[in-house]
Amino acid sequence: MTDRYREFRDLAGALGVDAVALVPGPNFERLYHAHFSTSERPTLVVIPAKGPPAAIVPNLELSSWGALGFEGEVFDWRDQDGYAAAFDALAKHLPIRSLAVEGQVMRVFVHHALAGAYGPLDIRDAEGAISGLRLTKSADEVAALEEAIRISETALAEVIETVRIGTTEKEVERRLTAALFAHGAEGNAFGPLIGSGAHSANAHADARDVAIGDGDALLIDFGARWGGFAADITRTFFVGSASDEAHEVYETVKAANARGHEIARAGITAHEIDDAVIGVLEASPFADRIRTKTGHGLGREVHEAPYIMRGNHEAVPAGAVFTNEPGLYAVGRFGVRIEDDILVTDDGNRSLTTFPRELRILG
Amino acid sequence: MTDRYREFRDLAGALGVDAVALVPGPNFERLYHAHFSTSERPTLVVIPAKGPPAAIVPNLELSSWGALGFEGEVFDWRDQDGYAAAFDALAKHLPIRSLAVEGQVMRVFVHHALAGAYGPLDIRDAEGAISGLRLTKSADEVAALEEAIRISETALAEVIETVRIGTTEKEVERRLTAALFAHGAEGNAFGPLIGSGAHSANAHADARDVAIGDGDALLIDFGARWGGFAADITRTFFVGSASDEAHEVYETVKAANARGHEIARAGITAHEIDDAVIGVLEASPFADRIRTKTGHGLGREVHEAPYIMRGNHEAVPAGAVFTNEPGLYAVGRFGVRIEDDILVTDDGNRSLTTFPRELRILG
Repeated sequence: MTDRYREFRDLAGALGVDAVALVPGPNFERLYHAHFSTSERPTLVVIPAKGPPAAIVPNLELSSWGALGFEGEVFDWRDQDGYAAAFDALAKHLPIRSLAVEGQVMRVFVHHALAGAYGPLDIRDAEGAISGLRLTKSADEVAALEEAIRISETALAEVIETVRIGTTEKEVERRLTAALFAHGAEGNAFGPLIGSGAHSANAHADARDVAIGDGDALLIDFGARWGGFAADITRTFFVGSASDEAHEVYETVKAANARGHEIARAGITAHEIDDAVIGVLEASPFADRIRTKTGHGLGREVHEAPYIMRGNHEAVPAGAVFTNEPGLYAVGRFGVRIEDDILVTDDGNRSLTTFPRELRILG
Repeated sequence: MTDRYREFRDLAGALGVDAVALVPGPNFERLYHAHFSTSERPTLVVIPAKGPPAAIVPNLELSSWGALGFEGEVFDWRDQDGYAAAFDALAKHLPIRSLAVEGQVMRVFVHHALAGAYGPLDIRDAEGAISGLRLTKSADEVAALEEAIRISETALAEVIETVRIGTTEKEVERRLTAALFAHGAEGNAFGPLIGSGAHSANAHADARDVAIGDGDALLIDFGARWGGFAADITRTFFVGSASDEAHEVYETVKAANARGHEIARAGITAHEIDDAVIGVLEASPFADRIRTKTGHGLGREVHEAPYIMRGNHEAVPAGAVFTNEPGLYAVGRFGVRIEDDILVTDDGNRSLTTFPRELRILG
C-alpha cells in the first residue's frame, strides 16, 4: 500500500463514509501516476475505509491497468455488453452505504450507474476534501510546475517580439502554441485566452481573427502543461501606444499584484490574501472595474484549492501554489490582468513566475 | 427562437420531461456558438418544454453571456457568495419536476446543486437523446471536419518523413503537434496517442521518452481541432523493417478497414457495420487480438454517437460521421490500427480521410 493510497483510505474514515471513489482525473493521476482518458467509458476506483479497493475498468484498458499495481478486484466490461453488469458485480462484492466522490470530476452517468447498482447509496460531494489532498506540493511537483512555467515564459518572450499593429489574435495564439511545443510543452494547460481591445475585458477571451489596433490592450492568459502540471500566467501588453488611462489602470493592477507577493506566507488565510490584494483595487479610482477574486490554487489542475477569495477562511499552508491575478475590466473598452504563480513557504513565498511585470508597449 | 433551440425544447416534450438542461460542452456550443470553460463554476441552461429558458451564470461571465442572444432569466452568482442562492432562485422561478441532462457532460456537483435547490427532482440521464441531435452534420459542420482532417493529414505526412530508428515517441509527438499548429489547428482534438513496439498494443499509448527500435510498429492516433470540430485518424507504420507477421497482421486490419468503407450507407445499422468489419478480423488467424469495436461517431466530440458496435441496432443516417478503426493488438508485442473518418451518404459514404493505407516502412 502506498502512502498516497493510505491518505485516501484514511480520508474515508475522516469523512465518516464507507469509501472514497476516484475517477480518472487529477486525484487519480496523483495516486497511480497514470493517465486514462474517460469519454463515454466509465472507469472507477472505490477505496473503502477498511479492506482492499475495487475497480470498474473498460476491458480495452486492462493492459494499461495492469501496470498500476492495483491491489484489488477489477470488474471489467466490454463495449458490446455495456457497463451495468460490472457495477452490479461491484455492488455485490463491496457493499457500502455511503461514498465520497469528486463532485467536480465525476459525471452524472457514473453517479447514476452507482445509484442504479447500489440502490440506496449516500453519494456525497467531497471534492474539497479529496482534492484537498493535493494542496501541499512535493518537491518533485514544484519542480514539474517550474518546468511548465519556464517553458511558458520562454515561449511568451519569443512571441511578443513578433506582435505588431495589425497582427491578429489568432496569429498570436498560433505562434504561442507552436513556441510552447517547440520548448517542450506536453500540451496547452488550457485553451489560451488572447484578447485585444475590448475583448481583453471579457472573462474568456478566445482568440478571434481580429487585427490588433494601435493603442489596444493585448491580454495573454496561457500556460504549458509539463509532467502533469499546469502553468497559468497572464500578462497584459499594449500595442503601438498606451493611453494615460491605460498606464494608470496598469499601475493599479501591478500594485495589487505586488501586494499579493508581499503578504503570502504559510498560515495566512485565503480571505486575508484576497482582502489585501482586492483592497488595493478598491482604493483606486477603478473600483467599479473589479470582477474577480485574487486567484486559485494551481497544480495538476488549472483551477484547484486553495481558492483565494474573501469568505474562505482556511489557512494557506507551506507548499501550496496559487495564482495571484488581480485585474480591472472596463466592459466594452479594455481589461488588464497580471497573473503570477506563487509558492507559499514557511517564511513567505517564492514567485515561480518571473516574467517582467512592467508595462510594455509592443510593436 | 432559433431552430436549434426549438429542437431542444421539443426534445423535452418527446422525452416526457419538464425541461432539458445543458451545461457548457458540445451541445451547448452547437446551440450558442460559444465556448465557456467550466472548471469549478457551475453554468447551466434550463430549456423547458413550455415557456422561456433560464440560466445560471457566473457573474464574471456575464459580459460574454450577453453576446449569446439568450432570451430568458439569468441568475448570476459571484465567487465570494457561492452558487446555492442562484440555484434556489432558479428553482423558485422555474418550478419543474423532471429534467433531462447530459449524463456524460454534467458533473455531480451541478447534479447535487440542482437536487439541493429543487428537492424532489427526477434528474434523468438523457445523454443519448440530447447528444443525438448532433448525429446528422450540416454542410458547414462537414466542412469544418474536412478542414480539421486536411490539417491533420498534412501534418502527419510531414512528420513521418522525419522518423528514423532511434527517434523517440516524445519527439514524434512534439513534431506532430508543432506541425498541426503550423498548418492552422486550433488545438489537439485529444492528447495524441503515439506508441511504438509493445506500447502500440496499449489502448492509451501516451508518448514516452523511448526510442523506436528497428522493426517496431509505430501507431499514431491523433487529430486537429478546427472550427469546433475534431479529426480522429490513426495510421500504423513500421520503422526500419517489418516482419512477415507484421505484414500479415497489417493486411488483415487493412481488409477489415476496407470492409467498413464498402458497406457504410444510410440505413445500415451500427451493429451491421461492426459485424462486417470485425467479422473480417474474426475470420483471420489473429482473432484473439481483437480488443475493440469498429468505431464511434465524430464531430464536436472525439467520441459521440453513433457508437459502431454490435448490439447497437440503430440505423445510421445520411450525414452521420463515424470512425472506421479496426485493430489487432498482441499485448506485449505490437498493435496495428487503421482509422478513417467516414461521412455516411444516401447512396453510400465518403471517406473524409484520404491518407494512404498501404503498409509503409519509415526511416
